[in-house]
Amino acid sequence: MRPSKALERRLAGRIADIPVVDVHSHVPSAAPCARTLRDLLGYHYFTELAHSAGMNAEVIAPDRPDEEMLPELLDAMENINNTVQYSWMMELARELFGFEDDRLTRDNWQPLDEAIRRAADDENRARAVLSRANIEKVFLTNSFDDDLEGIDTDLFVPALRLDDLVFGFQDESVRESLQRVTGVELAGGRSLAEALGRLVERFRVRGARSVAISLPPGFEVCQVDEAAFDRVAQNALRGARISQDVHVLQSGMLLKVAENCGHLGLCFQIMYGVVRGAYEHGVLQGTDLPVAGCSLSGLLPLLNGFPEVTFCLSVLSAGQLQELAAYGWLVQNVVLSGHWWYLNVPARIERDLAARLQSVPKNKLIGYYSDAYKAEFALAKFNMYRRILSRVLARDFVEAGFGAEEDAVRIASLLLRENPIRIMRL
Amino acid sequence: MRPSKALERRLAGRIADIPVVDVHSHVPSAAPCARTLRDLLGYHYFTELAHSAGMNAEVIAPDRPDEEMLPELLDAMENINNTVQYSWMMELARELFGFEDDRLTRDNWQPLDEAIRRAADDENRARAVLSRANIEKVFLTNSFDDDLEGIDTDLFVPALRLDDLVFGFQDESVRESLQRVTGVELAGGRSLAEALGRLVERFRVRGARSVAISLPPGFEVCQVDEAAFDRVAQNALRGARISQDVHVLQSGMLLKVAENCGHLGLCFQIMYGVVRGAYEHGVLQGTDLPVAGCSLSGLLPLLNGFPEVTFCLSVLSAGQLQELAAYGWLVQNVVLSGHWWYLNVPARIERDLAARLQSVPKNKLIGYYSDAYKAEFALAKFNMYRRILSRVLARDFVEAGFGAEEDAVRIASLLLRENPIRIMRL
Amino acid sequence: MRPSKALERRLAGRIADIPVVDVHSHVPSAAPCARTLRDLLGYHYFTELAHSAGMNAEVIAPDRPDEEMLPELLDAMENINNTVQYSWMMELARELFGFEDDRLTRDNWQPLDEAIRRAADDENRARAVLSRANIEKVFLTNSFDDDLEGIDTDLFVPALRLDDLVFGFQDESVRESLQRVTGVELAGGRSLAEALGRLVERFRVRGARSVAISLPPGFEVCQVDEAAFDRVAQNALRGARISQDVHVLQSGMLLKVAENCGHLGLCFQIMYGVVRGAYEHGVLQGTDLPVAGCSLSGLLPLLNGFPEVTFCLSVLSAGQLQELAAYGWLVQNVVLSGHWWYLNVPARIERDLAARLQSVPKNKLIGYYSDAYKAEFALAKFNMYRRILSRVLARDFVEAGFGAEEDAVRIASLLLRENPIRIMRL
Repeated sequence: MRPSKALERRLAGRIADIPVVDVHSHVPSAAPCARTLRDLLGYHYFTELAHSAGMNAEVIAPDRPDEEMLPELLDAMENINNTVQYSWMMELARELFGFEDDRLTRDNWQPLDEAIRRAADDENRARAVLSRANIEKVFLTNSFDDDLEGIDTDLFVPALRLDDLVFGFQDESVRESLQRVTGVELAGGRSLAEALGRLVERFRVRGARSVAISLPPGFEVCQVDEAAFDRVAQNALRGARISQDVHVLQSGMLLKVAENCGHLGLCFQIMYGVVRGAYEHGVLQGTDLPVAGCSLSGLLPLLNGFPEVTFCLSVLSAGQLQELAAYGWLVQNVVLSGHWWYLNVPARIERDLAARLQSVPKNKLIGYYSDAYKAEFALAKFNMYRRILSRVLARDFVEAGFGAEEDAVRIASLLLRENPIRIMRL
Repeated sequence: MRPSKALERRLAGRIADIPVVDVHSHVPSAAPCARTLRDLLGYHYFTELAHSAGMNAEVIAPDRPDEEMLPELLDAMENINNTVQYSWMMELARELFGFEDDRLTRDNWQPLDEAIRRAADDENRARAVLSRANIEKVFLTNSFDDDLEGIDTDLFVPALRLDDLVFGFQDESVRESLQRVTGVELAGGRSLAEALGRLVERFRVRGARSVAISLPPGFEVCQVDEAAFDRVAQNALRGARISQDVHVLQSGMLLKVAENCGHLGLCFQIMYGVVRGAYEHGVLQGTDLPVAGCSLSGLLPLLNGFPEVTFCLSVLSAGQLQELAAYGWLVQNVVLSGHWWYLNVPARIERDLAARLQSVPKNKLIGYYSDAYKAEFALAKFNMYRRILSRVLARDFVEAGFGAEEDAVRIASLLLRENPIRIMRL
Repeated sequence: MRPSKALERRLAGRIADIPVVDVHSHVPSAAPCARTLRDLLGYHYFTELAHSAGMNAEVIAPDRPDEEMLPELLDAMENINNTVQYSWMMELARELFGFEDDRLTRDNWQPLDEAIRRAADDENRARAVLSRANIEKVFLTNSFDDDLEGIDTDLFVPALRLDDLVFGFQDESVRESLQRVTGVELAGGRSLAEALGRLVERFRVRGARSVAISLPPGFEVCQVDEAAFDRVAQNALRGARISQDVHVLQSGMLLKVAENCGHLGLCFQIMYGVVRGAYEHGVLQGTDLPVAGCSLSGLLPLLNGFPEVTFCLSVLSAGQLQELAAYGWLVQNVVLSGHWWYLNVPARIERDLAARLQSVPKNKLIGYYSDAYKAEFALAKFNMYRRILSRVLARDFVEAGFGAEEDAVRIASLLLRENPIRIMRL
């Protein structure tokens, strides 16, 4: 019923020793760590929650100096100090910057800001933070036309993010960028397919192990034959309105990318179910929402069509979690990946994780990823996950009679490290 | 993992001392308390459950005397004595009427009935019950044409319930009532808008702080321009069939009401997702069901369109709870309100509350409302909620490391009292 | 918050003594027990999970000898030894065959195989296994044209499974079989209705207490008048393509069967929400998936139309569980039945069961059924359920204040034995 505290604590100790691989983040490889407190408090989790709690969006206008903006933001954040998101800030401040108070306020932010600025001077800061977090590798999120030179591939793994390309293809500058980075002159379906192939190849040679995309709820991949793809590609390339066919174009591009993932041994990370821009008055990056009631079934053409490609799936809506677990249970090329965004909440993770562990093959679970914008948050988030994992393994695995303590440690190692390494072919 | 019993008990004691505000009930201000046992056992929760468990609907025919009806109803209720609904009856009987047995049966109902009748003679009974329940204010549910005089506004807060008006507008008597209470002669969109404005104003001057409506699952508010509203209003006003346009009319009325809420500083309480009359053979008030899989996204035009209006949202389907939490997390003018009807079950509340507390700003949560038809049930229901809140704060907040015991008490005070007062501008 | 271990243990002891009725299984009455280890490891739960975990489907080709196939399957099953499904195999091996190791591997399978083969020689084996499992009766799943002679009705209860008939009616061989077993020459709606009536009668006289069907997600029963049913039946009978009308035919057949259930006092077991063949590369019986977001509302015409028929409902998607509980709460002729397939996972059952016990009349819950293909799995699955039931009754019923220990035992007896007997009229 309840794990002995002693068992949970022993597991937590063993789990802390496992170096993890973070398969999805937005950490910028050129500036992975915060240089100021504002870099951290500007994280959309804080700005959107503070705004939601009543803060005027102008408080965080980019041109306001820290001395004006931070005290007001911190005042507003008093309303969110019950949340797990707030607890991430406290945890990283304590673990990485020696912060000792219970709450961060307009009265105590300056010493923390100074500590962050001092730490930023250390040119090995990223390595130090990740080492303290016991994170071995962090996946990046790169736009298709990002410059991939100069990435410290000892710490970071590039990933080709497809959203701009697939959902922005009707934008001429996107099409021009694609031509530029691939060297393919786009004329129709065949050349577009070739460009996509070169793009995936371009990322693979720079060390990418996966492509990634977020899809709106209800997105259904449709079958697209070569003639249809050629027709719609030609229309798009000459800037024609293709509103009727935009779904064919998008599906076709996804299918072509999946095909190339198969050829080149890359995983396809899909984050399913976000409505972009749903809330019109939100702050920057704070306008997207989930939709209850949508289903993963629209991905079946992709999953069935490319059995040789591993699809690492995340969902945004609690109503899809059991469906996702069923896909992981049954479909060989589906891996369950982490606990995304609005589902990245301890009470939700705890329930879902127990069910995953009891019903999905243990080699098909990527336990967690940080989705962090700065390395510091990866520490706080993974620490949160490690605590949940310890508790769930203690209660819902060992004490529920599914295996011994050593088996639980072995499962933790798979979820945090071995599965990401094997699945992503690191 | 588990809160120490001692912590949970301390929190329960502190929480019991917080006077609560009940933002939604069906308590009739003229007869807020039961006069007989039948008044309590006639609550649809009991009659529908007993009927569902096999009782013939004729058992509870209005013309049957208590001596015949109550023993048979209580026999049938033996099948529901496992439920939380049954436990409410036991709790109020013990707390308010000195009932001491474990179960209410055909053999022990009479002394309880007598105790209820005796208590009803006290002209300050409502005040005594609410005081015993530590409930400071109770919101009413008033039809648009209710007489609002003579309400004890020290205890009760009127609320304009829109269901009859919006969903019954094609009924001539409804339109006539609206003309009568507002003094506006209805001729088209403009006069209908004016009448709605006067209606909201009429309620506000009598102390109302909110309007309220329940919506069917999948109801999507559409944009309605003045011309369209005028056309459909004119058609409705001359009694034409407007089946194609009924949704335009309903959306238009909601938009007009929301506009007036903005002008007059009233909240909009929306209870989303009930199918009325789904079960054809149900007893009175026992025919409505939720629908799995529906989404709140149909409310976005309202939420986006009136950022100055606070929308207090409740849902009926578990599949929408995480979507609702995401709305509360992101959308400034959305407040999460209570645990409605089919979700008002401890095992469900407990899970949902933990996730709300960990992810939604604490000033955006109205913890609970009673939805009661008699004040006695408000006592039992709030007591149930207080126990759940104590447990969740102990386990998922204090022991999970989100804050100290004092922080937990402060959160409880926000959820039970301060948020309703601030949000409803009491 | 947590049940005392002592209470949970006492309840488990009392619950173990209750002989159970298993209202749904796929146990073949002619060969209810395993004759070899392969009979057990061939269960689709293992083959599909092992395949999903990476095993090549050819490993389990029917023509491969045990000595080749089993070691490879067991190697693959190392990846699923975290799951509850794996734990069923371990539990039955220990309880029924004296297996003593923690894991089943290529190194220790042979003694287990020998023990199974030895046990199979006992001609009273089924009785012995079910007695050890404390299972009194097991419902079968019979195709409409099964030979029903020679079934040991002391142990087994036939059930008319409708899937082949309703969803395969456009297959000529199905129509011929129906004519053969009913002796009705099919000519149109009236004769089809008569054949369905005779079929239900045929099963009833052989001891059947229910008909059963699994339905795809979103299946909506439509009203079908006699003329429409006659027209579509005639078209189907002459082999015409009736793609537009196939839903009318299927709905009509369901309505006719329900009518006959009413006449003959049989229950209608409906398992809602499976997409057959969704995963194209799955192993045998390993291709079906749930769909998030679908609703039971499509069944309302059936539930409303036949108030005299008891519908025992199961769902496949977690998103429908609360909707199902609401139906059980409100609709007199709906019974909640067990925890089906992808929901048959302890962490999911535990949550759902707590909510069912707190909100649905106790006489409307059939606690569990095994869905087993061999009697041995019924033992393991019911043992799992008994443990969960003990825990939930301890924590969410007794310690949550809903009743005493004796009440909890009484509820367990209803869920496991008395409700199935009363509802199925055994």
